[in-house]
Amino acid sequence: MERTVHVSAGGGYDVRIDRGLLARCGEAVRQSVGGAAAALIADAAAGALYGAAVEQSLRAAGYRVCRRDITPGEQSKNGQEFLRLLEWCAERELTRTDVIVALGGGVIGDLAGFTAACYLRGVPVVQLPTTLLAMVDASVGGKTAIDLAAGKNLAGAFYQPSLVLCDPETLRSLPQEVFAGGMAETIKYGMLYDPALLAALGTDYDLEEVIARCVGYKRDAVEQDERDTGARQLLNLGHTVGHAIETLSGFAIPHGQAVAAGMAIVTRAAEAQGDCEPGSYEQLEPVLRKHRLPVGTGFALDDLAAAMRRDKKRAGDEIALIIPRRVGLCQRRLLPVDALEDYLWPGAVTR
Amino acid sequence: MERTVHVSAGGGYDVRIDRGLLARCGEAVRQSVGGAAAALIADAAAGALYGAAVEQSLRAAGYRVCRRDITPGEQSKNGQEFLRLLEWCAERELTRTDVIVALGGGVIGDLAGFTAACYLRGVPVVQLPTTLLAMVDASVGGKTAIDLAAGKNLAGAFYQPSLVLCDPETLRSLPQEVFAGGMAETIKYGMLYDPALLAALGTDYDLEEVIARCVGYKRDAVEQDERDTGARQLLNLGHTVGHAIETLSGFAIPHGQAVAAGMAIVTRAAEAQGDCEPGSYEQLEPVLRKHRLPVGTGFALDDLAAAMRRDKKRAGDEIALIIPRRVGLCQRRLLPVDALEDYLWPGAVTR
Repeated sequence: MERTVHVSAGGGYDVRIDRGLLARCGEAVRQSVGGAAAALIADAAAGALYGAAVEQSLRAAGYRVCRRDITPGEQSKNGQEFLRLLEWCAERELTRTDVIVALGGGVIGDLAGFTAACYLRGVPVVQLPTTLLAMVDASVGGKTAIDLAAGKNLAGAFYQPSLVLCDPETLRSLPQEVFAGGMAETIKYGMLYDPALLAALGTDYDLEEVIARCVGYKRDAVEQDERDTGARQLLNLGHTVGHAIETLSGFAIPHGQAVAAGMAIVTRAAEAQGDCEPGSYEQLEPVLRKHRLPVGTGFALDDLAAAMRRDKKRAGDEIALIIPRRVGLCQRRLLPVDALEDYLWPGAVTR
Repeated sequence: MERTVHVSAGGGYDVRIDRGLLARCGEAVRQSVGGAAAALIADAAAGALYGAAVEQSLRAAGYRVCRRDITPGEQSKNGQEFLRLLEWCAERELTRTDVIVALGGGVIGDLAGFTAACYLRGVPVVQLPTTLLAMVDASVGGKTAIDLAAGKNLAGAFYQPSLVLCDPETLRSLPQEVFAGGMAETIKYGMLYDPALLAALGTDYDLEEVIARCVGYKRDAVEQDERDTGARQLLNLGHTVGHAIETLSGFAIPHGQAVAAGMAIVTRAAEAQGDCEPGSYEQLEPVLRKHRLPVGTGFALDDLAAAMRRDKKRAGDEIALIIPRRVGLCQRRLLPVDALEDYLWPGAVTR
């Protein structure tokens, strides 16, 4: 059964979730966006699996299709690739009423989304996320970006897509580790808003229902705070510590795994500091373990704290941490940067 | 006497016009934007003349200042320069609450504006335009861009500045031809909205009042149509023919001069076709001549028409021309692309 979440941001758009959606994407794009040409920007791995079916469906819906495959991985999310994509759109004579279609995970969504935001000062973009992380997080909310030498996601645009089609069939082809990274973000939504979701993720769950529910939570946060200055910051649960872990590992530890460790650390710390209801970590830990996600890190606390002090979200002498009060309720807490180690140390010890 | 035009687009911002504003820009930036650091991006020629005064004023207002000079000319408005500026902002650790200050003409305004739109997904930008064209046109409305290999302004963003300071003292240092190019755009506002302005531009005028009036017209158009899909298109008077002239000349003919010729051609044509009140061109021509602006082109009509058919504003088989009905009243007219030569030929003959 198809599920649809409507997002009232940008021009407003639907996130549709159903098995087999990729193979019938053409009609959906036609109805939502129109236009004569579709420029398909695909992760090369996702393109090899689903590119032909997507192209065929777009052509059947009357689109002139051109396609460009991008080398998988974060290293493709750079300025030169972005400029090459802009030139490619111009060479293909894409106009303002045509559409860019992004097929792949978060890297492709960010790169193709930023290209769409800038080409001719904005052309429609349709997201076809093929990873769980991209479905529940990156494809909703309109954050697009490229990396700079100084750090990840340092340039980009807030630019909402015109349509998002999530086909859970694509998740079968994901390596276990990549799928688990996406599960970390769904577990985060449980910690933030939904004890029943967290419990289900530890036992049995309907994946399509989980995706739809998480997309709905993301939608609520984005609609409250499209430019990420308030309510949306709660979504950073586990991310400040997580980013520090990613950075210290030279990005060898993937985002989702780092966020999982970050959530575990901050939850243990908040419990020990008396900010969080006792027993909360007991609910989180087995769910993380079930999905083979880490609950700690080998990096030393003072290295973590130093990396956090360099975080772009630092505001002057304070840093915002998202702290669980209990499962399903979190809050933002400003800590003096000097107090980070004192606050986090009880969480940094992996039990 | 200082004049201020408030623009209700983006977060809302003032365009302030007064002699000597550059040397006291620091306080104005402080009041409008705040922040700790100011990244000054300057046209090297404007920087040599005014950069030190601007830096000094910013420092006096408490800013940590860094500065980067850009080689003058359209060729700097490219993707590589844009990426270098993004990396430079990151290296200088500019944060979301700091400010980019653009000092120069339209090229710098576009390049620094686009950088500000994308760095950290948007940081405040203050425009200090030093050409007449940038004051009356480019600094208001939030269109930012870079050029691609396939054409000018093919990538960019709609991104409004936080403040615009126009110091007419800077216009004294402009070469006559560059100043005249800006006058072509002020003459355009006369043709579009204001017979008294057109008449004054042919005799005697107060330059600061002219700038303020033109900024006001631009503001009205932008407020009606921030994304350039309707009323703002009237501002393209003379531009469709003008862009063709620029392109055919390999951009040897500057924008303002090409627009002047375009206005003359389309006004003569409209009069001959019975769309425009007789005598309108008689009012326009002496004003253009007084400012040593061209009233025609040496390019053949069929070459002009072919270049116009490749214009990015072409919509399918039709092209929109802005046509004067009389001085002070213009309208948009859709012409089949095949009918362009027939419509324009009476205007292409320079009398």
